[in-house]
Order: sequence, then structure tokens, then C-alpha cells
Amino acid sequence: MSEEYRAMWEALGINMKRHDALLAALPAIYQQVYLSQQRRPQAMGFYDFVVSEIHGLRVKELMDHKAKGGKVFGTFCVYVPEEIIVAAGGIAVGLCGGADFSVPTAEQILPRNLCALIKSAFGFKLGAICPYFQAADLIIGETTCDGKKKTWEILDEYVPTYVMDLPNSRTPADRMLWISELKRFVGEVEKVTGNTITPEKLADATTLINGKRAALARLFELRKARPAPISGLDALLVVQISFYDDPARFTHKTNELCDELEARVKAGQGVAPADAKRILYAGTPMPIPFWTIPALIEATGAVVVAEESCTGTRLLAGGQTTIPGDGIDSQLAAIADRQLQTNCACFTPNDARIEDILRMVQEYEADGVIHFSLSFCQPYNLEGVRVQQALQKAGVPVLLLEGDYTEEQAGRLKTRIEAFIETL
Amino acid sequence: MSEEYRAMWEALGINMKRHDALLAALPAIYQQVYLSQQRRPQAMGFYDFVVSEIHGLRVKELMDHKAKGGKVFGTFCVYVPEEIIVAAGGIAVGLCGGADFSVPTAEQILPRNLCALIKSAFGFKLGAICPYFQAADLIIGETTCDGKKKTWEILDEYVPTYVMDLPNSRTPADRMLWISELKRFVGEVEKVTGNTITPEKLADATTLINGKRAALARLFELRKARPAPISGLDALLVVQISFYDDPARFTHKTNELCDELEARVKAGQGVAPADAKRILYAGTPMPIPFWTIPALIEATGAVVVAEESCTGTRLLAGGQTTIPGDGIDSQLAAIADRQLQTNCACFTPNDARIEDILRMVQEYEADGVIHFSLSFCQPYNLEGVRVQQALQKAGVPVLLLEGDYTEEQAGRLKTRIEAFIETL
Repeated sequence: MSEEYRAMWEALGINMKRHDALLAALPAIYQQVYLSQQRRPQAMGFYDFVVSEIHGLRVKELMDHKAKGGKVFGTFCVYVPEEIIVAAGGIAVGLCGGADFSVPTAEQILPRNLCALIKSAFGFKLGAICPYFQAADLIIGETTCDGKKKTWEILDEYVPTYVMDLPNSRTPADRMLWISELKRFVGEVEKVTGNTITPEKLADATTLINGKRAALARLFELRKARPAPISGLDALLVVQISFYDDPARFTHKTNELCDELEARVKAGQGVAPADAKRILYAGTPMPIPFWTIPALIEATGAVVVAEESCTGTRLLAGGQTTIPGDGIDSQLAAIADRQLQTNCACFTPNDARIEDILRMVQEYEADGVIHFSLSFCQPYNLEGVRVQQALQKAGVPVLLLEGDYTEEQAGRLKTRIEAFIETL
Repeated sequence: MSEEYRAMWEALGINMKRHDALLAALPAIYQQVYLSQQRRPQAMGFYDFVVSEIHGLRVKELMDHKAKGGKVFGTFCVYVPEEIIVAAGGIAVGLCGGADFSVPTAEQILPRNLCALIKSAFGFKLGAICPYFQAADLIIGETTCDGKKKTWEILDEYVPTYVMDLPNSRTPADRMLWISELKRFVGEVEKVTGNTITPEKLADATTLINGKRAALARLFELRKARPAPISGLDALLVVQISFYDDPARFTHKTNELCDELEARVKAGQGVAPADAKRILYAGTPMPIPFWTIPALIEATGAVVVAEESCTGTRLLAGGQTTIPGDGIDSQLAAIADRQLQTNCACFTPNDARIEDILRMVQEYEADGVIHFSLSFCQPYNLEGVRVQQALQKAGVPVLLLEGDYTEEQAGRLKTRIEAFIETL
């Protein structure tokens, strides 16, 4: 895809040499991790195409949108409400943060003792390697962890960064604070886009995003089947792409995928034998192209049946957002109330996350749980201690891992994952 | 002191063998770090006595208080309002967290990638090594960092732990949240103590704590003199003791110390020559007995003139708490408004902290700044990046350090500190 987009990347200020190196590495990795899989659903062709165009077609769409006066918002967290951005005619894109490639760049400025996701994302901006970052008019950060909260202050020196103040708990007072943050965000998005968010526009945008959420929820529901109709790798890719593809197209294509999976389930067909070990992933998000954990798990013959993660069920928590008819304030409260059911480790207490994991073990008939936390992610690392205790108490096999995006770590993780799955 | 308190420690469930080992190590360290200093103020005799009785007399006082039905609250943060505890007839003590001794114990449960302060404190409880922890009826945690926020959930399994929800920012909505947290805390403290906090009691308690704050502020004001009238080591010890000694006694003794320092300043006498290099410490708190950084700095002949730290000026930020006459709600708002002037790195933005450091360089006539952050303390580690930038821009020499409580780290820090001071 490279040739036709070079002018666009150059106009975006991309460091072409490094970007070329990044793109050159992807096809072989994608071939090895994705295309070599057996019994893939045909509908995965769409997502393969999206990946083949990863810095091309979608970026072109963003640039066309910008050429018409539209705005692009870069985000990092499921607590940043896409509905509000869409209601103002904006486009929300989840930003790059899943590659070790940009980590050394970030470490020129940031401390090393910081999770790979933050360093990767920061390095993509610092090194001008990511066209999504370059295309964004505003970055929307949040206060979900110390690392992000304090990195936004530094990032703001390189690109305008707005921070949403997500509270540390979910008391009624915290809820009021978060609703006030959603209101403040409406004002900011209106200012940046120049468009007013009416109750009607917000209702339409909420309906659109509800559609996306419903399609993804359908995918997760289908994964409960035995044999599993789709690999964990493919399901993860779908979720990863949901963060940056056009919501209407994504919803349509994902429902097509679900139609195919539904037929598989009815026919008793799967990607793995019915007695393949079923693994529940729990832990930190896996941004594209961080596919190491499911790749290692599924290379053993096991299948990942669900991800309790922000690139998984945490993205879908709270289900469909209700759309009250009595004005913006009620609509924002409904968005907040749906969001606050997402059991992020940033909250204390967060016992409901442990209950989620225990429930998912049952619902997805998981044989074991692999809890992975990026190194230096203290919220998930520490919560892992209590997750492990709860699972052990319930008699569920659990493996607690931490790591980063490097090849060295992948080697270390491989040994531990293989040993764990052998015990199941 | 050991013999006469053994029965008390045993009653507190102390692990006597490990506790003996801990106490046995202290005198030699204290001799080497503190008693070997030249030209110490005579009034430091009181603080030397307090240290010699570190797990004795003060713990005995707590136990006498408890025998009469009084309650003890263990705290970790300057945002936990001592005034409210005192108003309910309680005693607040800052808990142990400055020794590597208990870190390996903590690492049996907690991840290693966590700051030494949290691990040290947790290890003191897990290992039953700290009589203050054992004496506490309730631990008061807060949400100032991911590490603490999530460790309290685990600590609560070992000792009742109440968490105050300090917000991530200081907008009007955050301020309201914090005031509501102070109200909730009043209710909790009333429940635990069985005593009602009246406006009069809270006013008296605020006056008492204001007295302590004024004495410490006086100490810091005197340290602006050239030559410095007191070593950084001694000043730090005074602040460390302020966290757990009886407030009235501490205030009285610290004012006596300040009288002596005032006479010194008038006489032009100091602990170091007038041309000794003057260092401003900035960064994470230094809980007792973590004396490594000022010890290394002052061993070079330089003097630490102030600490921009929670064991320093951040403890005193906001000055005297006003005492409105129109009821508890106004009094709590006044406490919140005083507290929220403490520029903790947990807040975003926190530019005022950088302004504090730049102002302190002027006021204390500092020749350079040593910014130290405990490893894995992401708020201070990351904020250090911007502190360094701001100081370099202002032409102020700055050294950015991170480390922990171990001897190995002390060796590494020694080299860097000596090299930095040589360049001044």
C-alpha cells in the first residue's frame, strides 16, 4: 500500500524512514501470526484488509474528513465517550500503543519504569511514526493511572492534550464528578469542532455506538460456544480494529462475521477441537499489534475464549447506553452510568472486576485464566494479587504474568504459558 | 530501651525476633549518621531521645490512650487531616515505611515493581514488626498513587483500612468531592472513636495542629539563613518526628529548637561555613529512618537547606488553617482549601509544584536541586522530567535521581551526588 500514501504521510510530517521500517516489518509478522491460522472465518478477510491498509485507507478517510473541516480526536481509553465526539461530527480513533518499535524513542524523555503501552504511544508521537497521532487535532487523555496522568502533561508539549478527570472510586460524589467531566468534555468538543451537540445529535451518535457495542457483544456471546467458532487472535483483532475503523462500517462487517460464526455454531464447527483447552485472558489491554499472548496460548492448541480487558469485555461493560428523552444532562448521566460499570483497576474498590472474572470462567467454560499485566502497570499488577487469590479459592487454575512488547519477554512468557497449559 | 517494653510488644503481637534485629541495628546507624555531626543544636537532644525511644515511650503513650478507650489511627499522607482525628479524641500516627528491612517480607505478596515506601510499610504489617501498625485501630489510606490505592485493598485483609478518595485534579468539582470525603471521614472517625466532633472540638484541634504547623514553618524560615543554622539531616528528623509525636509536646520542643536557631542566626553561627554549597531537595518523602540522601549530600560538606517534599514544605503548604465560626461544614471547607495548596504529584496539572521549587531555589539561596524519586513512584518520576526542564531553563543546576532504601542503591547514589556537588 505504501506508494500511493507517501504524499499523505509526508504532509502529516511522518518520519518516512522509520515509518518505512515499521511498515516493512508488519506483513511477515501478520502472515506468521494471523494468515497461517487454520479454519479462519471467511469474514475475517475484511479485517485482514483493514490491517493491510493500517496506515493507508483509514488515514486517508481521516484526511478527507479534515479537508472538509472535520476534526479528529485521538483517544486511549474506553472511558473517553466516542458518542460525544461523533455527536459533534468528529471522528475518534484509538491511538497506536502496541509496538516495541517506538519504546526506545520514548525512553529518550520518559523514565524506563513505565508500562510499554504508554511508552509505545508516546514514542509514536515523539518519533512522528504514527499517522493517526499526526492526524489528530486533539488528544484526549484521562487520569486512569499515574503513568498516563503524568505523561499527558509531557505529551501536551508535543501535541494539544486534553485530560478527562476520571475519579478513583465510584461513590455518588465520584459519579457527579464524572458527569461534570462529561459536560466539560461536551464543551471542549464543541469548541474544537465548532459544532453544537444537540440532544438529537447525541441520541443519533449513541445509537450508532450502541450498534457497534451490540455487534461486539454478539461476537463475545458466540465465543461461549464449544467448539470455539473463532480464535482468540481473530476476535482480538476485531476488537482492536473497533477502536479506529468507521463505526457504521465496522458494525456492518462485524455483524456479517457474527452471521458466519452463528452458522458455525449451529453446525458444531469450530477453529479448534471441542476438547481444546479454553483460556480466559484477564488483564491489561492489548493494543494493535500486540498479539503475543493469544499467539503463544493458541500455538499450544488451546483457544482463548474471551478477554476480560479493555480490548475485550471491559469495552462492552454496561451494555447498551440508554437514551433518555429529557435532554443532554440526562443523556450524559446515562453515558456515565453505563461507563461506570466498566471495572477498571483504576478504581478502589474494584471487587466487581473479580466477580466478572469468576463469572466469565463459568460462562465461557474456561479451563484456566491467564492474567497478564504490562510491567510497571501498578493497578493491574497489584489487582492481580487479589484476582489470583480469588481464583485459587474458587479452584480455578490461574497464571499471573507480566511483561512488555519485546521479543525477549515473548520468549520468557512462552515457557511459562506452555508449562501452565500443560497442567490443565 | 528494649527490656522494659518487651511485655508491651508481645501483647501487640510483635514478631520479637525480627523486631529485636531491627532495633539492634538502629543505634550504630544513628551514631554514624546523626550523633557524629558537628555543631548540632543542643535542642536536638529531645529528638535524639525520641529516636532512642522509637518503639518504646511513644508506643507506651498510645497503649495508655487505648487503655482509657482512646483510638489510634495510622496514616501515610499529609492529606489525611490530623485535625479531625484529634477533634474526636483520637491520636494520629504516621506509620513506618522508611526501612529496607521489611521490603523482602512485603515482596512475598506484593509485586517487586512498587516503591520502597509502600513495600516497607506493608512489610512492617505483614511481618508484625512495627508497634505503631500493631497499635492502630484503623489505617487511613488515600488514593494519591496507583501503588497505594491498590495496596490498601490488600492491606485491608490484614488490618482494617479506610480509604480517602483524593481526586486527581483540583477543579471546583474535585474540591467538592474532597470536601465530601472530609465529611465522610468525620463520620468514620466518630464511629470508630464513639465521640462526636463538634465545631468547638474541631476548632480546638485545628488550633493545636496549626501550632505544630507554625513551629515547623518557623524552622523552615530559619533555614533560609546563611550560614545554615541546622543540618538538613537534623531538620528532616524534626519533620519525621512531627508525624508521630504528641502534637503539643512536639510544638513546644520545636519552638525551643527554633529559639536556639534564632540565636544562632543572630550570632551568624551555623552548622556549615557560610560558603558551603546549599542544596534544595525535591521529590518523594523520606520516612524515618530513610536518611540516605541528606547524609550523602552533607558528607560532601554541602548542606541541605530545605526539602520540597511531604517530609518538608509540602507538609506546610497552605499555612495556617482558618477556623470559620459558622459550623463544621465551613471548617471542613477551610481544611480542604488549606490542604489543596499542597502540590502533590498526584494532581494533574501540578505546575504550581514547579513554581514552588523555582521559588524555593531563590528563597533558600540554593546552589542546586537534587530531585529524588523512589523507584516505581511514577507520579514523582514523571514529574521529575518537567522539573528538570524548568530548572535547566532557569539556569539552576539539577540532578535527577531515583532509588530505594538498599545499601546497593546508596553506593550508586553516593557517586552521582558527589559528582554533582563538585560541579556547583
